[in-house]
Parts: sequence; C-alpha cells; structure tokens
Amino acid sequence: MAETLIQFGILGCAEVARKVSRAITLAPNATLYAVGSRSLEKATRFATANGFPPSAKIYGSYEAVLDDPNVDAVYMPLPTSLHLKWAVLAAEKEKHVLLEKPAALNVAELDQILEACESNGVQFMDGTMWLHHPRTAKMKEFLSDPQRFGQLKSVQSCFTFLADSDFLENDIRVKPDLDALGVLGDVGWYCIGAILFAADYELPKSVIALPGTIFNKAGVLTSCGASLIWEDGKVATFNCSFEANLTMNVTAIGTKGTLQVHDFVIPFKEDSVAFSAGIESWFNELVTGWRTMPSEHVVTTNLPQDALMVREFSGLVADIKRNGSKPEQKWPTISRKTQLVLDAVKAALERGL
Amino acid sequence: MAETLIQFGILGCAEVARKVSRAITLAPNATLYAVGSRSLEKATRFATANGFPPSAKIYGSYEAVLDDPNVDAVYMPLPTSLHLKWAVLAAEKEKHVLLEKPAALNVAELDQILEACESNGVQFMDGTMWLHHPRTAKMKEFLSDPQRFGQLKSVQSCFTFLADSDFLENDIRVKPDLDALGVLGDVGWYCIGAILFAADYELPKSVIALPGTIFNKAGVLTSCGASLIWEDGKVATFNCSFEANLTMNVTAIGTKGTLQVHDFVIPFKEDSVAFSAGIESWFNELVTGWRTMPSEHVVTTNLPQDALMVREFSGLVADIKRNGSKPEQKWPTISRKTQLVLDAVKAALERGL
Repeated sequence: MAETLIQFGILGCAEVARKVSRAITLAPNATLYAVGSRSLEKATRFATANGFPPSAKIYGSYEAVLDDPNVDAVYMPLPTSLHLKWAVLAAEKEKHVLLEKPAALNVAELDQILEACESNGVQFMDGTMWLHHPRTAKMKEFLSDPQRFGQLKSVQSCFTFLADSDFLENDIRVKPDLDALGVLGDVGWYCIGAILFAADYELPKSVIALPGTIFNKAGVLTSCGASLIWEDGKVATFNCSFEANLTMNVTAIGTKGTLQVHDFVIPFKEDSVAFSAGIESWFNELVTGWRTMPSEHVVTTNLPQDALMVREFSGLVADIKRNGSKPEQKWPTISRKTQLVLDAVKAALERGL
Repeated sequence: MAETLIQFGILGCAEVARKVSRAITLAPNATLYAVGSRSLEKATRFATANGFPPSAKIYGSYEAVLDDPNVDAVYMPLPTSLHLKWAVLAAEKEKHVLLEKPAALNVAELDQILEACESNGVQFMDGTMWLHHPRTAKMKEFLSDPQRFGQLKSVQSCFTFLADSDFLENDIRVKPDLDALGVLGDVGWYCIGAILFAADYELPKSVIALPGTIFNKAGVLTSCGASLIWEDGKVATFNCSFEANLTMNVTAIGTKGTLQVHDFVIPFKEDSVAFSAGIESWFNELVTGWRTMPSEHVVTTNLPQDALMVREFSGLVADIKRNGSKPEQKWPTISRKTQLVLDAVKAALERGL
C-alpha cells in the first residue's frame, strides 16, 4: 500500500519556512503543494527558491491556501499575534495545523486554537523540532531509567544568542504587536520545553522570576530567567537572552545520573550528535580525578530533525485521513503545558517589575 | 641559589589531608615536616600512611605543631568551627596558614583570621585547589579577552554529589557544631568562587535564594541555590546539593564567547583536562546546524593542581622568609570575597524560610 502523501500549504514566507520547506521535501510522506503570502510576488520567489514543484500553487493570500481543497495541512510560520486568527481558521477549513512556536500569546489563545482543532478533527503540532530528533528519544530513555538516572533532582537550561542591532530594532521578536513574548517566546520556549521534557511533563507548583529581566523600550522581553519548583522538591532554572553569545544547554541531574547537552535545539551537526551521560559519577580514591566519568553517547540520523517532525506530523494526518483516527493528543498536550509554564513565567517576570 | 624548602605541619588527619600530604611531597619547594592530632596514635598512623619522612615530627596535639620552631607553615583541614581558634593561634605563632575551605563560618570570623595573619606578617591562603590549575589561567585568558569573550553576561554553576546515608548522618559537613555551613560551605563555596572568578571578583549587588532549599533536621543546609545580580546587569545562578549525582559545571556566557567546563573543581584526569570555548557561535545558513562550534582546549600539567597550590603558597612563604616580603594579598582577598558572598547567600536562604 502506497504511503499517503500529505500535501502542505505554507502560510507566510518567514526565514524559518525555508527550513521547513526543505523538511517537507525530505519527509517521505509529505509534499510541498502550495504557498501563500500577502504578496503574490513574494510567494512566487519563495516557491522558486525553496524547491516547490512546478505544479505547486502560488497564492497571494493566506485565505486562498486555506480554501484550496487539495491542501491537507498547513505550516504557519506567522508572528505569534496572528496564530489565533489563522490557526483557528485553518482548523475550521479542516486543515491540519503545524504551527510555529511559541504556540500562542497565552494559554487562553492556545486553548481556542486547540478547541478549533479538536472540534474539526484535525491534528495540531507546534514546530518544536528537537523533540523529534532520535537523540531526544535516547535522552528520554536515560532520564526514565531508575538504574542509570534515578530520580530527577534539578534541571538547568539556557538559550542565548547575540542579536545584532538590526534584529534588536526590526525583528518581529522584539515587536509588541508581532511576537510580543520576545525572548521568552522565542528561545525561552525551548528552555521551558526542555525542563518539562526532563520532568516528564509534570507541571511545577510554582515559578519565580530571576534577577536580570530586561524589557526593550517597547516593553518586549530581551533577557530573562526563572526558577521552578515541583511538589516533590525538584527544581529547575533557566536563562534566555538576545544579548549573549549563542549557547544552548540542558543539564538534568538525577540521584544516580546526569544528562548534559549543549546543542539541544539545533544540533551542532545534522547527521550525528551527542549527549553526555554521567552515571554514578565518583572520584578516585584520593579525589584527584574521577573514577567514573561521563560518557558521550552519539546518535546518528539519516533524516534531519525538522524532516522527522514533518514525517511524524504527516503520519498522524495520514492516519486521520485514511483510517478516520482521532488526532494524537500527545503534541497539543506538550504545547499546552509549555505555554502554561511560559504564561506563569511571564506573570512572575511582570510581577518582578 | 637553592630553593627554600618550606616545612609543613599538618593539623588534623582528615581525609583531605592525605591528598594535601601528597601535594606537599610533590611540590618542589615544600616538605612534610610534622603532623599533629588529638591522638598521637592517629598522627603516627597518618604519617606512616602518607609518606612522611622518618625524621618527621609526630605530635599528639595541635598546639605542639604550632610550638615547633621548625614548622614554617601549617595546613589545617579542621572543621570550619575550629578555623577561628586555630588559624589565629597559628598566625600568632608566626606560622603561615594554608586553611581548608570554607575559610570560616562567616566573614567576621574570617576577618579575625586575616587580621591575625596580617599583623603577624604570615601568608594566608585557603585550600581552593582549582584556582591553581593551569587550565584556570587559560580560562581567565579567555574570559578576559574582549575579542573572543567580550563582556560577561551570565554565569551558571552547579556542584552536586550523592551523599550516602552514613555521610548524611555522620559527616562533619552535616553537623551544626562542625561544618555548620553544610553543602553551601562545602561545594557551594566552589560555585560562588567560580562565579566570582568569572566576574573578575567584582562583587554582586544583590543575592536571592532559589526555591528548593533543604535543611537537615539539625538545621544544616543539604541543598540550596541562589541567583546573583551585578550593577551592570550581569547575572549568575548556582545550585549545590548533597542529594544528586556528582556534577560540577561552570558556564560563563559573554557577548562574544561561551566558556564551559564540567570538572572545574576536580579535573576528570589529573594530567590533562579541557574546557570548551565557543567564540562568536552561530548557525549555518539554513539553521540546521552550527557553522561555528565550540572547541575543546586541552591543558596539560606535570604537577597536579593540589601540588601547584602548595608550590604557589610555599613560594610566597619563601619570599617572606628570605626577602622579608609582605604577604601576597591576592589570596586572602579572594577568600574574603567568596566568604562575603557566601554569607549573603546564607542570609538570603534563611530569610527564605
């Protein structure tokens, strides 16, 4: 039986859409079918530059993509402030929704999107690619292993990059009417996601803001951090910033093991990446060195994580189309928990003002 | 001119004294001369087991070591609660003082020790070994380089280890009358020291406690963390615990560079260690990997860091003995700043109760 090929429409020509277009091309069960932009010329240029087949539909509006009956699913790299309108409309048009992160401006908006997806029987997934890397599954195996990792005690994460002056003035991620969540929605989303991933998606009981919050003149976050605590006493901290060299760490420490990864969102290399696992780490007899050192675990992949995300999403869509299955709840649940914690962090940061 | 050989007396036979005895043996300008314990038998056993020469003096009290006119310097691996009494007495007896960390129970006590050292013209140094590793000097070069590292923006540090039930019940580090600072004085000392090192010993303007503080039944800290902020907006967080797998990280992020090290206090291997330096890290064109990845910098050393500490200390002592030099202020200054921040963290943790 031939695999169902999911036909994608892309709404908007953001930078990240180039990468996801490649991912759709690479995924064996997905195909680039249409692109829509507010400018037909821009959409045409985008399709030409990003490997769309000659048969692809080029539209001068987002609506036109949603109205095309041959579009199965849409990928939406739109500013966060537009997610509510367009994701709900897509769901109402019975298009499956792959929505760029952060999922929404807040959980109330996300709930409207998720309800629209649910009531129209369409799959929802946010664009967090690293969750689909096979390394992530290996990390989960380690974190879940009572013999090697034990009970989670703490997580530290950071994600920073140095934005240039053009970014800090003009990028949508510093504009209150576009990506109003700023650095928290952009890279903080990943830190929070990694913390929840390590905590097996148990929600923390409380959140406090760390010192050092920076808002730009328009009131958008450009640096921040928070500390989280759970019912059982485990803790997490994260820092994110547009104002420091590119760094993306997760360190999760259990009673028996330690997981460390320094490229969790964007792997250093596409095809071969690693994480470090320390297991019952200890010193030599005179404490002049380590008897049990952390070891590197290399994970290879033929398909990059972005294509694996598209393949996973398209497989779920195909199952719904072909078999009348219900949408998979795992992905909207992860998105919603991430958004819930993000909202709590944002509230804590604003209280800290 | 032959190098002056500094004759060491050791006060107490703690575990760590075994390592420092080896260090004194390895250091070319120091020699094991005497050991004192409250038990003569214990002192004898210690001297035999730790390579003391046959001529070494074995004493059944700490006083006797201090009263030996041939003892130039003392190394004191005593519980923190005894530092004030014995370090002051040693200074008054004109013995140079190499004092195990944490330096004192608080800065008021440390100031009495430092004043006694100053007024008696003896060198003070605390037992923080990692500061003497050549890797640390290489890390400092990187952190100080405006081209490669830029301006420091944030530091994250953690130091945890899993104490067994015997430790949690009986070790001096969980006893309010011995090492009353608990995990904060033990491994938190190193986290604070690393943060100050990265901040070039500029003191933070304020400190807050992180959630997750744990005191044992006797009121001694076994897990804690804090967040620090400086006048210029740079921030730091650290976590320390007796309740999670051995992990010791420092991540310092500047505008241009990122320093990462995972064995900062006790190197994985004695003779060859590394740190990771990311410089102007950035993604490839499609953000599917990194164009500029962090690189590993390996640093080798013939002498282990503990022996380098003894060599540095003994060199300063020799200079005082031979040339009538003033004691070097760098080391007591670092100790005092570390203790000041530790005191502020402790106060914040107690306020958080």
